[in-house]
Amino acid sequence: MPVEVIGRGRLEALSDGLFAIVITLLVLEIRVPPLDHGASDGAVAEALMELVPKFASWVISFVTVCVIWVNHHRLFAAIGSVTHGVFWLNANLLLWISFIPFPTALMGDLPASAPAVSLYGVVMGLMAFGFVLLRWYLQTNRDLLQPGVDLAAFRRGTWFSVAAGPLAYFGAAGLAWLSRNGAFLCYAAVAFYFVLPHATRTGTPSRRR
Amino acid sequence: MPVEVIGRGRLEALSDGLFAIVITLLVLEIRVPPLDHGASDGAVAEALMELVPKFASWVISFVTVCVIWVNHHRLFAAIGSVTHGVFWLNANLLLWISFIPFPTALMGDLPASAPAVSLYGVVMGLMAFGFVLLRWYLQTNRDLLQPGVDLAAFRRGTWFSVAAGPLAYFGAAGLAWLSRNGAFLCYAAVAFYFVLPHATRTGTPSRRR
Amino acid sequence: MPVEVIGRGRLEALSDGLFAIVITLLVLEIRVPPLDHGASDGAVAEALMELVPKFASWVISFVTVCVIWVNHHRLFAAIGSVTHGVFWLNANLLLWISFIPFPTALMGDLPASAPAVSLYGVVMGLMAFGFVLLRWYLQTNRDLLQPGVDLAAFRRGTWFSVAAGPLAYFGAAGLAWLSRNGAFLCYAAVAFYFVLPHATRTGTPSRRR
Amino acid sequence: MPVEVIGRGRLEALSDGLFAIVITLLVLEIRVPPLDHGASDGAVAEALMELVPKFASWVISFVTVCVIWVNHHRLFAAIGSVTHGVFWLNANLLLWISFIPFPTALMGDLPASAPAVSLYGVVMGLMAFGFVLLRWYLQTNRDLLQPGVDLAAFRRGTWFSVAAGPLAYFGAAGLAWLSRNGAFLCYAAVAFYFVLPHATRTGTPSRRR
Repeated sequence: MPVEVIGRGRLEALSDGLFAIVITLLVLEIRVPPLDHGASDGAVAEALMELVPKFASWVISFVTVCVIWVNHHRLFAAIGSVTHGVFWLNANLLLWISFIPFPTALMGDLPASAPAVSLYGVVMGLMAFGFVLLRWYLQTNRDLLQPGVDLAAFRRGTWFSVAAGPLAYFGAAGLAWLSRNGAFLCYAAVAFYFVLPHATRTGTPSRRR
Repeated sequence: MPVEVIGRGRLEALSDGLFAIVITLLVLEIRVPPLDHGASDGAVAEALMELVPKFASWVISFVTVCVIWVNHHRLFAAIGSVTHGVFWLNANLLLWISFIPFPTALMGDLPASAPAVSLYGVVMGLMAFGFVLLRWYLQTNRDLLQPGVDLAAFRRGTWFSVAAGPLAYFGAAGLAWLSRNGAFLCYAAVAFYFVLPHATRTGTPSRRR
Repeated sequence: MPVEVIGRGRLEALSDGLFAIVITLLVLEIRVPPLDHGASDGAVAEALMELVPKFASWVISFVTVCVIWVNHHRLFAAIGSVTHGVFWLNANLLLWISFIPFPTALMGDLPASAPAVSLYGVVMGLMAFGFVLLRWYLQTNRDLLQPGVDLAAFRRGTWFSVAAGPLAYFGAAGLAWLSRNGAFLCYAAVAFYFVLPHATRTGTPSRRR
Repeated sequence: MPVEVIGRGRLEALSDGLFAIVITLLVLEIRVPPLDHGASDGAVAEALMELVPKFASWVISFVTVCVIWVNHHRLFAAIGSVTHGVFWLNANLLLWISFIPFPTALMGDLPASAPAVSLYGVVMGLMAFGFVLLRWYLQTNRDLLQPGVDLAAFRRGTWFSVAAGPLAYFGAAGLAWLSRNGAFLCYAAVAFYFVLPHATRTGTPSRRR
């Protein structure tokens, strides 16, 4: 049995707190337009219409963070011991998750800018790569996983994580230099794909309390 | 027994974290007026008086979020299994709840603007419609509910949710184009109605630990 | 046994989340001074010195929120059932607690302004009055309290709450019109008084797990 | 057995909430650059490059807060009773932790300013001194510690805390007046040192659930 740094439940609680805050802070970056008290209905409606790219970025990031949350919990349900390595690979993941509000706001502000739209994909790709690293560490240190975990299915899940995560995001980040809308649609597709029933195939237990 | 995606307690914890943050962020949108160190007492008092619509918007949204919290918990007390569908219908609800600070701030900034006051009702109506969707899904998938839930009472509660939720809010959002104060009073009435004792009649258990 | 709206533990968790966020948001109101990259050491030091009243307001509010947290938990340890009335009297308390960042920032920005310094005391007094209301409701509905609670001691604690809460704060808020520094010292004295050992005498159990 | 003010689990939950929020708020201080919709790719890339010192400050503070979190939990695992003194020494620690976003943002804004870079080290040193105070209080009140704690190892851990905490940070804060980069490297070194396996030697139990 490996030495445990911190209880699994406690680390899940810290991670959950971070998820709840990130999800809520995403909206804070949609600033209320600075209009006068006497602004006409048309001016207010126009200012709101200009925020449409920010609303779209926010919805995509909201759905993405929900997907990350589900994946994070399914992965942690497979973990038996939180060692020093698990803690810091999870911290790396949380670092990228906590950063999501920044590229989301930037893409919403500058939806026509290739570097802005590309940065979103790069950050999401690095976040998704954090999942791959954690999964790889767990499967090469098999005694860190719960006894009931099917290692072959877990390994297939890791390959699926690589394809649906870093590969998809870095590809979309590259596409952004050719087409902003194309990259935007890719980001939305990755997020909403996981909303479909039975989309997750990562070899982690599908049931827990 | 349906397949559970995530433990109910864990999803409640994420939702509770989001509620606590939304409630607290509402105040952040009341910006401290940018006055000089040497501002006269009259100037400070006047700047605070100008914030009265923001304070009023904040109180209405604070009470509304408390009401949502009570309803959310009573509903979750009736849920037996958190499936993929329950998770994403709850995520839709959380999306609208996390968005509340934006229309609250906008209505507080522009209390005389029809689009601003109307947007508040539209967002609240979509949030309330999220409750209706989740209730409808649960009552058409009866095995997702706790065994002890009275399905007929639950169904009556859903109809009550439609009336006290989307209908009331979309009606008030329409009224905003005729009378800002009228819409404002409707929003306050919906919120404070639920503060009255015995106001909730939604067929969910009234007791839990 | 009265009807319970919501489990006590769940309401404590929501309240704790709100406390943690309020405590942390207090610092967000201390904005980093907008200086150039090439600002001289003297200019940076001077900008930081101008923030001293903000730092002082922040420390007083931080200590006050810690005191509120201790009092809140001791009070909730005495509560047996969370009814509709307890829920909404607690919501009133949370409303004022979540508002604390605003008067804290205003007093820090305008330490020489009587309305700004006075508002801090008014808000804190209304928050403290929320404690008195909740205590009064509990002691007139004795079956809401835990069986082991000494009602006579609890009643004496309520009188102590009136004196150390609303009376002290409203008095200091009045004093602010004569002396800003005097009011400021009162606010600090109320907060730091409770840091002294054995300062709390509110008839609530001193031990729990 | 000393009188307990508050349950240990509850105080850990408040502290954890604060940690999750501080970690997430660090990113909020990286403001999205105010660029036009039609900004050229070069202008956007340049604006992002100017934020590199902010990104670096953020990563160092993120890692530092993770290290603080691990140390805080290991220390609390050794605590048997939360008395009035433990509560307020922990509150002092939380005060400095909640303040971290301010010096982080200041150092990120003004990476070439000696007062800004030095302030970071002073705040971190005071935070680390809060750990020393709490440890010293616990070891001089031995009955507050769990029965199984090795007091000699705990005392050695306190000396290690002095060296790796206040001494290192105050030293780096002094160095900032001679070399900004030198101080910056010291801050990074202290943070990343604890990421190395087996870096913590503070006499607290290494295993818990």
